[in-house]
Amino acid sequence: MVPTSHAEYPPDLSPEEEQYLLSNLKDWSIAHGLAVRPAPSFVSAAQDPSGVLATTAPVTLFPSLFPRTCFDEGLGIQTAYNELYSAIARDEAWLQSIIEGLVEIDDFTGKLWQTHLAVKKEGYVQDLSLGLFRSDYMVHIDPDSSHSSPRLKQVEFNTIASSFGGLSSRVSTLHKHLLAIDAYPASTATVIKADALRQSKSASSLAQGLAAAHKAYGLSRTQRPLCVLFVVQDPERNVFDQRHLEYALLEESGVRAFRLPFQQTLSHTSLEADRTLVYTPPNTPSISYEVTTIYFRAGYSPDDYPREEEWDARLHLERSRAIKCPSILTHLAGCKKVQQVLATPHSPHLKRFLPDERVASRILSTFAPIYPLDESEAGKQAKELAGDPTSAVRYVLKPQREGGGNNIYRRAIPPFLQSLPATHWPAYILMEMIEPPPLKNAILRNGELHKGGVIGELGVYGVCLWRNGSDGGGSGEILQNWEAGYLLRTKGDQSEEGGVAAGFGAVDSCCLVDS
Amino acid sequence: MVPTSHAEYPPDLSPEEEQYLLSNLKDWSIAHGLAVRPAPSFVSAAQDPSGVLATTAPVTLFPSLFPRTCFDEGLGIQTAYNELYSAIARDEAWLQSIIEGLVEIDDFTGKLWQTHLAVKKEGYVQDLSLGLFRSDYMVHIDPDSSHSSPRLKQVEFNTIASSFGGLSSRVSTLHKHLLAIDAYPASTATVIKADALRQSKSASSLAQGLAAAHKAYGLSRTQRPLCVLFVVQDPERNVFDQRHLEYALLEESGVRAFRLPFQQTLSHTSLEADRTLVYTPPNTPSISYEVTTIYFRAGYSPDDYPREEEWDARLHLERSRAIKCPSILTHLAGCKKVQQVLATPHSPHLKRFLPDERVASRILSTFAPIYPLDESEAGKQAKELAGDPTSAVRYVLKPQREGGGNNIYRRAIPPFLQSLPATHWPAYILMEMIEPPPLKNAILRNGELHKGGVIGELGVYGVCLWRNGSDGGGSGEILQNWEAGYLLRTKGDQSEEGGVAAGFGAVDSCCLVDS
Repeated sequence: MVPTSHAEYPPDLSPEEEQYLLSNLKDWSIAHGLAVRPAPSFVSAAQDPSGVLATTAPVTLFPSLFPRTCFDEGLGIQTAYNELYSAIARDEAWLQSIIEGLVEIDDFTGKLWQTHLAVKKEGYVQDLSLGLFRSDYMVHIDPDSSHSSPRLKQVEFNTIASSFGGLSSRVSTLHKHLLAIDAYPASTATVIKADALRQSKSASSLAQGLAAAHKAYGLSRTQRPLCVLFVVQDPERNVFDQRHLEYALLEESGVRAFRLPFQQTLSHTSLEADRTLVYTPPNTPSISYEVTTIYFRAGYSPDDYPREEEWDARLHLERSRAIKCPSILTHLAGCKKVQQVLATPHSPHLKRFLPDERVASRILSTFAPIYPLDESEAGKQAKELAGDPTSAVRYVLKPQREGGGNNIYRRAIPPFLQSLPATHWPAYILMEMIEPPPLKNAILRNGELHKGGVIGELGVYGVCLWRNGSDGGGSGEILQNWEAGYLLRTKGDQSEEGGVAAGFGAVDSCCLVDS
Repeated sequence: MVPTSHAEYPPDLSPEEEQYLLSNLKDWSIAHGLAVRPAPSFVSAAQDPSGVLATTAPVTLFPSLFPRTCFDEGLGIQTAYNELYSAIARDEAWLQSIIEGLVEIDDFTGKLWQTHLAVKKEGYVQDLSLGLFRSDYMVHIDPDSSHSSPRLKQVEFNTIASSFGGLSSRVSTLHKHLLAIDAYPASTATVIKADALRQSKSASSLAQGLAAAHKAYGLSRTQRPLCVLFVVQDPERNVFDQRHLEYALLEESGVRAFRLPFQQTLSHTSLEADRTLVYTPPNTPSISYEVTTIYFRAGYSPDDYPREEEWDARLHLERSRAIKCPSILTHLAGCKKVQQVLATPHSPHLKRFLPDERVASRILSTFAPIYPLDESEAGKQAKELAGDPTSAVRYVLKPQREGGGNNIYRRAIPPFLQSLPATHWPAYILMEMIEPPPLKNAILRNGELHKGGVIGELGVYGVCLWRNGSDGGGSGEILQNWEAGYLLRTKGDQSEEGGVAAGFGAVDSCCLVDS
């Protein structure tokens, strides 16, 4: 059998091969909780009012090829990234200088900042802060050079609600299982090998991060049992991803956690006089818990705040003595503007947070050039690049907010900017497009199989627990700092050639190749 | 809080308690593969043509109360039951004396017996035989005595395709989890305690049975890789139950297994000249496997044999050198007639197989009286009991076949027998009804909650591997014999008071009580 070359990967499957692979994938995934609640377009609420149906999470049939050097670099620098973002979150003065340019043009960022100021006025009572981060990258091949080696370029850095840590561990186990049962054709044996597949430890490792914060909180001040609070959206289709962290936290560390829909925060939590956060589960009104750690899986999007009450809830939680994952300052450190400021060519900021030049230069090498759209020299240059259809094709325009789905690409940039008052331009950043190598894969999603060109995005998880200094000026100390596994998210490329539609994301795992 | 007494168990839940329990149950079950494919009445094939949806397996919200003495006795005598049925399966002459009365009136039993005879004529080439048994019981309270203690009475003994071993392990873990997260009201704390809940080890233990047979088979005779073959129905809604055994077999013992739909047997398997069984997976036509062990999860019902080809397939498998789980003689040993002969009052047969009187008397004490409907003295007595509406209310009429759903109860017996030619009466046995104690529980099934009176059935799994003697007259030796965990299956009682409808079964776990 002729070995599959990387260009031909993954191979076409015979109907029998595909049937075997799919039936094993579909059964294994449900048997191991690699699942999501079905989309309303697939199963309506009327059909399943109590919500008992589930389906295989969108996954790739094959582990996608990923350059070994890039993978190793991504995981290798995660602790440096943790250090960087912890330092940013501790440097209120610097963050303020970045955020103050945004508050006028981005209500959401403004509201977050005001929430911070309100708590600051009263004084924070918790100096510990937890980050469960995820740094997202794509592999970049310089289109102007035919012999350049692939390099890892950062797409964004997530400081709040980094998802898929629970499912990612399972999808790498799935691909290993499919290999073990010969679901991959023999022609792939030189590519899909046990030592090329990378197990993600994210579920367990992120749960250990929560357990570390829980333990660092110390003893109860109110003689209540202690718990971690997952503040969540409701309903949540990706609930199993979150549950896997909750189960790992209970099984591996013996720590209780509760799920609290963000919009019910004020009904079920209260603050003691010393701002200890107390959670009373609705099912046991006579037993309440002291919350050690708030894990936000909601609150990152303006949609999570339909009423003023949600802002009250965020303030209420932020005022509390519980350790926040993340605190508002850490949340704000993840805004695109921070990424842009760090990645603006010749920016002086990185060395402020990472004095070790060797570390800073490794981080710097993962930045794609990002420009502000403001009155600075770099901003003026960027406006020219973005306004010209010829140069705009190499860029993407992104709003400051996290959440995705709001980016403007290439040719669409000039007309979009023209439609916007120039005063609103600074709410966006201009980023050089990362040009990933062409890849193929097949994705199972809602029971449908999509084959074709794909783009992979590597997310590296990081856990960081630190103590903020009392001066708000960057002092403090890091207590825990580790790399916490990875996510490979693969979606259809934007080629018009059919196949996997753009945006059809799936959870994937890495099959490392020496490029 | 007032402790819940056994009569009030389980307690009514407040809406908040029910919501908390159900949301945790629904998420935990899918996250841990306690699942089934949805019934066509719930999700049509047209809606989910590729079969990716799954739902929580029917489960009870609470572990059901079960008398500790009965539980201990059921598990304690399982190895004796394994010994008994192994001895019956090895005693062809005795089995023949039982079966020959049936072949005229029950085609299915007749066909199985003919298959055995055909192989016997040629000579069996495999003297090892594996049983993954399940002995099913109910708790019996003598209705004529107000102070009698509960006793365990056998419903039936399954020698083929004993199901739910995979899911049973998980439901006992589920109930433990619900206890750990305080999903059970505090009033139940004196009942639902960690030391009252019993973990079933069935998934792992049954897989170890398959691994033991696989190992006992010895080296490949054909230089092929070895495998276990799960012969299955297709489609199979209860697939995860079976998959959990397959995964445990691979993960804990490193043994490969394949699923082969029974009706595809002749397309994908072949016999070498020495009757080594070779399986060629359709996805890898160039790689074939030598089958060490055939695990039948199909072939137990006449519905599995729609064409003569399926009988050819059964003969083909039975002729092979692979170890059968079960062999045809073992399969036949599970027929109701055998149970009836053993359990007919004053029957001499039990001591033939269990010479140790103490062991035999423990087994005997689990029999409910069973009568034949033939010309024997016991049979004549039974016909009178069954024909009289007054006495018939204490009995159930069962056909010889396994599979369930064909029993005739109490008042329905006399008219049913009158509608049947008297020559067909011997195809049935008359069994004294087991009168279980009144229990309540709540069952989640297809997303609907059913509350009310229930009946619990305890199944005890057993693994037995033996070598048949060369004389077919009962010689041979037992190589492995262990109790392999339990199943509690709970279904609605037949009370007319509403609640859980009869036949609405669910997987459950035992909460032991001292009666």
